[in-house]
Amino acid sequence: MQFLNTINFTVPLLANATATEPVDSSMVVAAVLLSLVVIYFASKLGGELSNKIGLPPVLGELVGGVLVGTSVLHLLVFPEGGTDSSNSLIMTFLQITAGLTPEATPQVFAAQSEVISVLAELGVIILLFEIGLESNLKDLMEVGIQAFVVAVVGVVVPFAAGTAGLMIIFGISAVPAIFAGAALTATSIGITSKVLSEIGRLNSKEGQIILGAAVIDDVLGIIVLAVVASLAKDGAVDVSNVIYLIVSATAFLIGAVILGNIFNKTFVAIADLLKTRGGVVIPAFIFAFIMAYIADVINLEAILGAFAAGLVLEETDKRKELQNQVLPIADMLVPVFFVAVGAKTDLGVLNPAIPTNREGLIMAIFLITVAIIGKVITGLAVFGQPGINRLAIGVGMIPRGEVGLVFAGVGAASGALSKPLGAAIIMMVILTTFLAPPLLRFVFPEPKTAATVDGATDPSLIGSNSK
Amino acid sequence: MQFLNTINFTVPLLANATATEPVDSSMVVAAVLLSLVVIYFASKLGGELSNKIGLPPVLGELVGGVLVGTSVLHLLVFPEGGTDSSNSLIMTFLQITAGLTPEATPQVFAAQSEVISVLAELGVIILLFEIGLESNLKDLMEVGIQAFVVAVVGVVVPFAAGTAGLMIIFGISAVPAIFAGAALTATSIGITSKVLSEIGRLNSKEGQIILGAAVIDDVLGIIVLAVVASLAKDGAVDVSNVIYLIVSATAFLIGAVILGNIFNKTFVAIADLLKTRGGVVIPAFIFAFIMAYIADVINLEAILGAFAAGLVLEETDKRKELQNQVLPIADMLVPVFFVAVGAKTDLGVLNPAIPTNREGLIMAIFLITVAIIGKVITGLAVFGQPGINRLAIGVGMIPRGEVGLVFAGVGAASGALSKPLGAAIIMMVILTTFLAPPLLRFVFPEPKTAATVDGATDPSLIGSNSK
Repeated sequence: MQFLNTINFTVPLLANATATEPVDSSMVVAAVLLSLVVIYFASKLGGELSNKIGLPPVLGELVGGVLVGTSVLHLLVFPEGGTDSSNSLIMTFLQITAGLTPEATPQVFAAQSEVISVLAELGVIILLFEIGLESNLKDLMEVGIQAFVVAVVGVVVPFAAGTAGLMIIFGISAVPAIFAGAALTATSIGITSKVLSEIGRLNSKEGQIILGAAVIDDVLGIIVLAVVASLAKDGAVDVSNVIYLIVSATAFLIGAVILGNIFNKTFVAIADLLKTRGGVVIPAFIFAFIMAYIADVINLEAILGAFAAGLVLEETDKRKELQNQVLPIADMLVPVFFVAVGAKTDLGVLNPAIPTNREGLIMAIFLITVAIIGKVITGLAVFGQPGINRLAIGVGMIPRGEVGLVFAGVGAASGALSKPLGAAIIMMVILTTFLAPPLLRFVFPEPKTAATVDGATDPSLIGSNSK
Repeated sequence: MQFLNTINFTVPLLANATATEPVDSSMVVAAVLLSLVVIYFASKLGGELSNKIGLPPVLGELVGGVLVGTSVLHLLVFPEGGTDSSNSLIMTFLQITAGLTPEATPQVFAAQSEVISVLAELGVIILLFEIGLESNLKDLMEVGIQAFVVAVVGVVVPFAAGTAGLMIIFGISAVPAIFAGAALTATSIGITSKVLSEIGRLNSKEGQIILGAAVIDDVLGIIVLAVVASLAKDGAVDVSNVIYLIVSATAFLIGAVILGNIFNKTFVAIADLLKTRGGVVIPAFIFAFIMAYIADVINLEAILGAFAAGLVLEETDKRKELQNQVLPIADMLVPVFFVAVGAKTDLGVLNPAIPTNREGLIMAIFLITVAIIGKVITGLAVFGQPGINRLAIGVGMIPRGEVGLVFAGVGAASGALSKPLGAAIIMMVILTTFLAPPLLRFVFPEPKTAATVDGATDPSLIGSNSK
């Protein structure tokens, strides 16, 4: 980017072309339509098969994503993985059927990837908004202390065990060991909450503790990542940045709750005033997107803002109406996220023919062991909840998902990680992500309502919305 | 673009950066979230006020778009208008609140514009899919001949009168006069169908004739545009291209109807088989997006494919269920389209302080007169329908909307149009677009159900969906 900017100065015409040259928009729309067809096909095929064998549909969506993505079919690929447009089968298909020229292909590919990535991001934002709408702030607060303890144990134990183990057993130096340890701390709210929702356990006590702990873990993870990244860059911790993150995260969460109590009534009053279409869902999205924006710009994650917005609106009389309307929107956008996560997963790291993978394999086995045990024991830290399913809580914290991939990505970019260790971390992320949904399904013995968002559907609507 | 490609060859590193350098994705997401907040705010403010004074909400959404767009507030601007990122208030806001660097701004601006443009395009695709779901193929076929006559009259009369008038009265040479005449032939399906839906007249006989004629007009317009563009480029008509367009358009429409009869049953069987969430809406979108893709790549418009898909699925038992689920999705995406159309409208052409505008003004008055009269008289061409509201049909064909803007854009790019004539065409497009919704509202005297899509809402859902 820096390089590009220097050039911009000396070649203004090119600079203009780079930044604002409009790509053939009809071709970009065609590429996005094709991508969505591929995504929906993969999500339905995977989701239905997964459901059929009694596993959460989201596992199938992830696997469907792997199938169409960079590991297998190369239909849906993204430039982040270093793939260029010539590896995208969708681009090849457009060249054959729509007369896309090879010269225009890189730009159309870049635009399509950008659009699909943002749609995926909107998908997980809407998912967390929906999860917030289905959760209850009071219930969450009631288990708040337990959730906090679970989150802290789930950060400290895997981090300490992972870092120490890598240094002592494998003789790895401090900075890369700390990075790998940090990657072990993540928990994917998206995958965990989606599975809980699919097996009808989101509103169980265990579900609320997992959800609360995953949210707190996400905040802790952002702080850990900031610490580790500054350590890898300067060899020292940027204390002011860490304090800023802690203060802003706390202020945001407390602010959301206080603001929520005020905004509650305003929202209902506004929604009652509006007479045209979208009079409930549009004000709700304005609120959710503003909260997501704020969370994003104070270096938290956008999904935390959307979750807080959902929690606030759950308190209002409009909850049921809003849930019914968000449901199909989530059905449309959420699969884009899970399929994209799968599509970006490069199973190449599991290929034993590649030397760095073989070297990484034994480290991967160690990391995976720590990753699973380090989270499962968090259930033991829950106190004052007799008869609670401690194993389920621990298992719920296992999936690293997209959060783990962020850690791996930052680590690889910083140059702190050796290739084998980088491969080992990605193996750990893949395995914990894909193992967690079936494990969660089995530690919660009797599913209540599979494949339906618990509490989201009005009884009169089950026929139309639950499928 | 051509220039860019030459450079790519000699500076491979830069070429790579241009095509695949990943932009700061968290910043792009923040920019898109802000844009959506602005869009939703503009659409609700405009739509509600418009509704309050008894006009179709979509007029308010367009005006709201103008307010936040390139003409007034510069919140939502697009590179197409030659605007660069320094004119985007959203970018300025991101620089202040989110620490967006000036160097990264052009790329984030380009990505944000690309994403919002595609969301707008998805919005109008979903709108036409929804309109198709609410229309009945048999009803449309019944008035097919009348719709065809209305479309042909509405193309021939404005084209002939406009071209001849400009040549005879204003002494303009043939090619620019033909271009201006061609711009007069357009009809915006999006605006017309949305207004009809909002005033509850989509399924009236008049509504069906207007809708059918607007669809046929769209196909005719694409052919006219191809003829005129090749005329402006080479001075000769590319006959083979015109034949290709006519054959492919006809084949597509007939194919859609035949295929529809077969796919009908397959769709219901598939939807019944699916047990996970989105089991109706996702297969429907797969079908709609494939149809839109096909229409797009055979040089028709994507919206025609989506409309055909909606018409096909309207025939199935799943219609009601599908309509209920598409409704909130449309509520989320359709406003992006109308606000974007408004935001891209540059009211600068109406400014009399600019000399070319003054010169264009008298031509604009002529063009607007031809534009309105040339479409209003199409109602007279309707035969065999005693007691039909001929005025309403003619008025329904008036709005040029986004289709007119495409003509103006191609004309300006070809260099065939003088500045005053270009300004005059844009004035004509703006006035017909913004006049049509109130006019349509008044020529249909008693509104049945304002602000509700006719027939789309299950009675049990009116409370939740109609607002």
